[in-house]
Amino acid sequence: MAGPDLWFTDQATPGLRTSFGVASVLYQGRSAYQDIQVMELHDCGRCLVMDGKVQSAERDEFIYHEALVHPALIAHPRPRSVFIAGGGEGATLREALRHRTVRRAVMVELDPEAVRVCRELLPSWSAGAFEDPRTDLRYGDARRYLEQTPERYDVIILDISDPLEGGPAYRLFTREFYQLVAERLEPSGLVAVQAGAASLIDQPVFPAVVNTLAAVFPQVVAYQAHVPSFGSPWGFATASLQAAGRRAPWAWSPRAVDRRVSARVETPLRFYDGTTHQALFALPKYLREALAQERRQIADDAPLFMP
Amino acid sequence: MAGPDLWFTDQATPGLRTSFGVASVLYQGRSAYQDIQVMELHDCGRCLVMDGKVQSAERDEFIYHEALVHPALIAHPRPRSVFIAGGGEGATLREALRHRTVRRAVMVELDPEAVRVCRELLPSWSAGAFEDPRTDLRYGDARRYLEQTPERYDVIILDISDPLEGGPAYRLFTREFYQLVAERLEPSGLVAVQAGAASLIDQPVFPAVVNTLAAVFPQVVAYQAHVPSFGSPWGFATASLQAAGRRAPWAWSPRAVDRRVSARVETPLRFYDGTTHQALFALPKYLREALAQERRQIADDAPLFMP
Amino acid sequence: MAGPDLWFTDQATPGLRTSFGVASVLYQGRSAYQDIQVMELHDCGRCLVMDGKVQSAERDEFIYHEALVHPALIAHPRPRSVFIAGGGEGATLREALRHRTVRRAVMVELDPEAVRVCRELLPSWSAGAFEDPRTDLRYGDARRYLEQTPERYDVIILDISDPLEGGPAYRLFTREFYQLVAERLEPSGLVAVQAGAASLIDQPVFPAVVNTLAAVFPQVVAYQAHVPSFGSPWGFATASLQAAGRRAPWAWSPRAVDRRVSARVETPLRFYDGTTHQALFALPKYLREALAQERRQIADDAPLFMP
Amino acid sequence: MAGPDLWFTDQATPGLRTSFGVASVLYQGRSAYQDIQVMELHDCGRCLVMDGKVQSAERDEFIYHEALVHPALIAHPRPRSVFIAGGGEGATLREALRHRTVRRAVMVELDPEAVRVCRELLPSWSAGAFEDPRTDLRYGDARRYLEQTPERYDVIILDISDPLEGGPAYRLFTREFYQLVAERLEPSGLVAVQAGAASLIDQPVFPAVVNTLAAVFPQVVAYQAHVPSFGSPWGFATASLQAAGRRAPWAWSPRAVDRRVSARVETPLRFYDGTTHQALFALPKYLREALAQERRQIADDAPLFMP
Repeated sequence: MAGPDLWFTDQATPGLRTSFGVASVLYQGRSAYQDIQVMELHDCGRCLVMDGKVQSAERDEFIYHEALVHPALIAHPRPRSVFIAGGGEGATLREALRHRTVRRAVMVELDPEAVRVCRELLPSWSAGAFEDPRTDLRYGDARRYLEQTPERYDVIILDISDPLEGGPAYRLFTREFYQLVAERLEPSGLVAVQAGAASLIDQPVFPAVVNTLAAVFPQVVAYQAHVPSFGSPWGFATASLQAAGRRAPWAWSPRAVDRRVSARVETPLRFYDGTTHQALFALPKYLREALAQERRQIADDAPLFMP
Repeated sequence: MAGPDLWFTDQATPGLRTSFGVASVLYQGRSAYQDIQVMELHDCGRCLVMDGKVQSAERDEFIYHEALVHPALIAHPRPRSVFIAGGGEGATLREALRHRTVRRAVMVELDPEAVRVCRELLPSWSAGAFEDPRTDLRYGDARRYLEQTPERYDVIILDISDPLEGGPAYRLFTREFYQLVAERLEPSGLVAVQAGAASLIDQPVFPAVVNTLAAVFPQVVAYQAHVPSFGSPWGFATASLQAAGRRAPWAWSPRAVDRRVSARVETPLRFYDGTTHQALFALPKYLREALAQERRQIADDAPLFMP
Repeated sequence: MAGPDLWFTDQATPGLRTSFGVASVLYQGRSAYQDIQVMELHDCGRCLVMDGKVQSAERDEFIYHEALVHPALIAHPRPRSVFIAGGGEGATLREALRHRTVRRAVMVELDPEAVRVCRELLPSWSAGAFEDPRTDLRYGDARRYLEQTPERYDVIILDISDPLEGGPAYRLFTREFYQLVAERLEPSGLVAVQAGAASLIDQPVFPAVVNTLAAVFPQVVAYQAHVPSFGSPWGFATASLQAAGRRAPWAWSPRAVDRRVSARVETPLRFYDGTTHQALFALPKYLREALAQERRQIADDAPLFMP
Repeated sequence: MAGPDLWFTDQATPGLRTSFGVASVLYQGRSAYQDIQVMELHDCGRCLVMDGKVQSAERDEFIYHEALVHPALIAHPRPRSVFIAGGGEGATLREALRHRTVRRAVMVELDPEAVRVCRELLPSWSAGAFEDPRTDLRYGDARRYLEQTPERYDVIILDISDPLEGGPAYRLFTREFYQLVAERLEPSGLVAVQAGAASLIDQPVFPAVVNTLAAVFPQVVAYQAHVPSFGSPWGFATASLQAAGRRAPWAWSPRAVDRRVSARVETPLRFYDGTTHQALFALPKYLREALAQERRQIADDAPLFMP
């Protein structure tokens, strides 16, 4: 054979397809909430796909998860409690637990089947995090959980898949939900959000998420990282209840970031350090302009769906 | 029709294909040197393809060309003469001529047919640069030209397509050629090089180019930018004859870069500014490590070809 | 390059795509009625595509056009007048004019632009047929033409593209239209119809067309031929006003067909002869069963569209 | 999701790809001899793929297997013993055992793993045939088996996958092997051969197989059937030691074939009957011409490989 004969195709837009050669399919099923596939890709290793979209791949999941978790946790002076909405692979939890200060990590994931499949087939994603005594794993709707808990958290991480029409995720991308998140944060707390593709070609959600956060939080910072298996740069945001000061963490020197990382984080990271921190927050001009021009606010009665 | 029925497929690796829906094909031909196609893509606008590889696309060519040209020219205290090897679209020339200090720009392109097609079908790429009185456009082998000219330049820009087996480009990616470039630079001069894909998945050339430059130049700095139509981050390097000082331009503050840009460059840029400058040079950790571990040196008798 | 980088994809069903490597694109445009493309395919030669569907390809158009035209014309004792609805390439006309008995061939094609493009870029399709003094080429709606003409024909050939939603073709696939065709036939006349894909996987139109013809004509015979560039066997039907007799042409011996062909047809054919005649009408059992079970009748107020 | 995201692609030629949407992958593995995949395709049902080539699919395997088996068995006056080379799915065996006259069926398949996978995942293919008391299933090289057995058979069926470079199949497509087959046939015996694609575009093996058989057998008859999941018409041949008489079975009337089928075969067939028999042997003119012009003979020292 000249090349692979089995291909996974991610159709990012009607005119843009990325196709990955598939070495083997390890799992295919439908949970109560979504289609779940685990595949071995020729170039990206093992890969989790939900509802046809790559969630994370063995070769580069460290980029996505380190980018999502560490900026907010490093920015916090002493994060003890972390709340994770979604994050079924367990890798967001894994990165949060690297921080020695963390005493308690509550993770509320909608889909028990997703967690079961990931624990069995993608064990290096969670790497023991589900068994960590600090972990409190719950299955259910993260929004309802936050409505009912009296607890407040130092860092809340929203690791929710993109809001697809007909899926349950869209209610975790609205102003009302972000308001609830703000109420469940400690005064010095931060929230970190995965916010969808951030390419010049394809950024259907990112600017709207950032603008909606800005309706709730005094300080919102957008950032991005390139995740190869997503086929484009990826957008994130972190927000806090405090106004931006002169010495906001986003402007820290690489050396200052490196110092805090080595004081706080147990094992060496592969993606995030002081220099990467600088790369994350230095958005290219065209993206800063797209963010500045955004006027949409996502609300419960005006939701946003991936096209 | 549900979607496009004509697709351009870029096979980056045997297991990775990016496919772009084609709205129309404007030109297909074979010059003395290469296959040339100009297509209108649904998501990327007009697009130049040579030997099956996207060279630049209307929607994002500004990213590639601003990233290639401005760092080296901004880093130079007063660039008056520029030499461009390749760059048939004319957009590298266009960006170089934006610098008010530039008095003379010599461009040596191998393929007159490529220039003819681009002038006719991609006029916004050159945007009048070929008609600029400072431009001296020659057709021929840039290496031979540099061997024979007694001239020295402030900035030399190598805008050569990736070294494909059987193509002529590979001789412009060797240590011997970089040595020749060094000899044709003024003492304070810099060279800027396009150096191929820089993704975690696909970086067959980038680290070797950087390492080969380091065999010739005392100061070499690698950087990257994400060019969506290339399907991955793209690698560049700039190098100079002077050792890195404490105040190397790569470490300038965004404000310092912005000041120099507004003093030097005529029209507003869309990609490059002080913040983007910071993003360009802040490589992610895994890429810094790949560069640090690279040992290959490309030489005339040990050339490197794209796989 | 390992293979072609430009592909034309025909999506026959949501789960079945046939992709042809494109050597060059010769024409792309939109007429008043449809998208028109002429491409050079690696494996099929020059190819006409309308609204995303292959109409005919250089390598195998002879199969389609000989299969459509000759059975009905050979079955007629002495065809003098032929009416063609559609058939913009001119190849149906070419095949009809091969019959020495034919004195007059009226062709009514909706789209002058389609004919213009085919005459210029696919000249071997018509091969001079448009210049034949027996040809009377009109542009317009074939249904309206047949409503208004007092003329009757020996053979009427319906070479209409598949009925796509939103297109004009669907009105030429209804019981009312077939009734009109019957009224414009001489008493001994026959009609020949292209009737869409006839594969086990994909036969959305064929059985319904045959069943609708059977509501109007006493004798209807379905047949098929494999046209490689269509990616599947193709369905046709011929029908006549006379009841099937014992010696219906569909049951003629190969020798009898060959005798009539050599008496009637001027130049040697590449596909059709006595043995091929037998192959055309001997449908596989599963297709005979699908035809026997069909109950749909296509009508002006109950049209059928390709899915 | 608009459509499937997992696709199986069969690259028939460098410029022709057929892609099938995959609903699920049931098995992927590598036996001692070949890659084996079992997939559920959206349009074709369950499907067996070996070394990247579709072997048979649930929706249309009956076409392939009935076409391979019944013509030779029906042509034989009273077939009692059958030898099958290859045919790991068990469906060739299933069709052979339908003939009431058959007392013994020896099947020699190289790959036990292929049989194991098919029995488990494709049970309707063999439909109990492996458990039939008349079956004698052996694992090993069919050529060696025929060299060593003193037995002679009424019908020998060669159900061998196409001869790929590097695979073991090519030695079962040579003149020397056909000579051995001839020696192991009873005087009134016949051989049936699957002989690869028979499309106008793609017939790399079919004419050469037919011509090689003709070097050994006095009577060789080529035929074809369209198998949708193969993407093209498929070529077969049957040959016998007796010269063609006036009343060769290939020329029997549909009624004569139907009479013999109903006298001999137990359960109703879905593809083969008297009319289909006629369709099988009535090759289109261009294919008869390609067969007539073929001069290649495949030999042990001049093997033929699929391109």
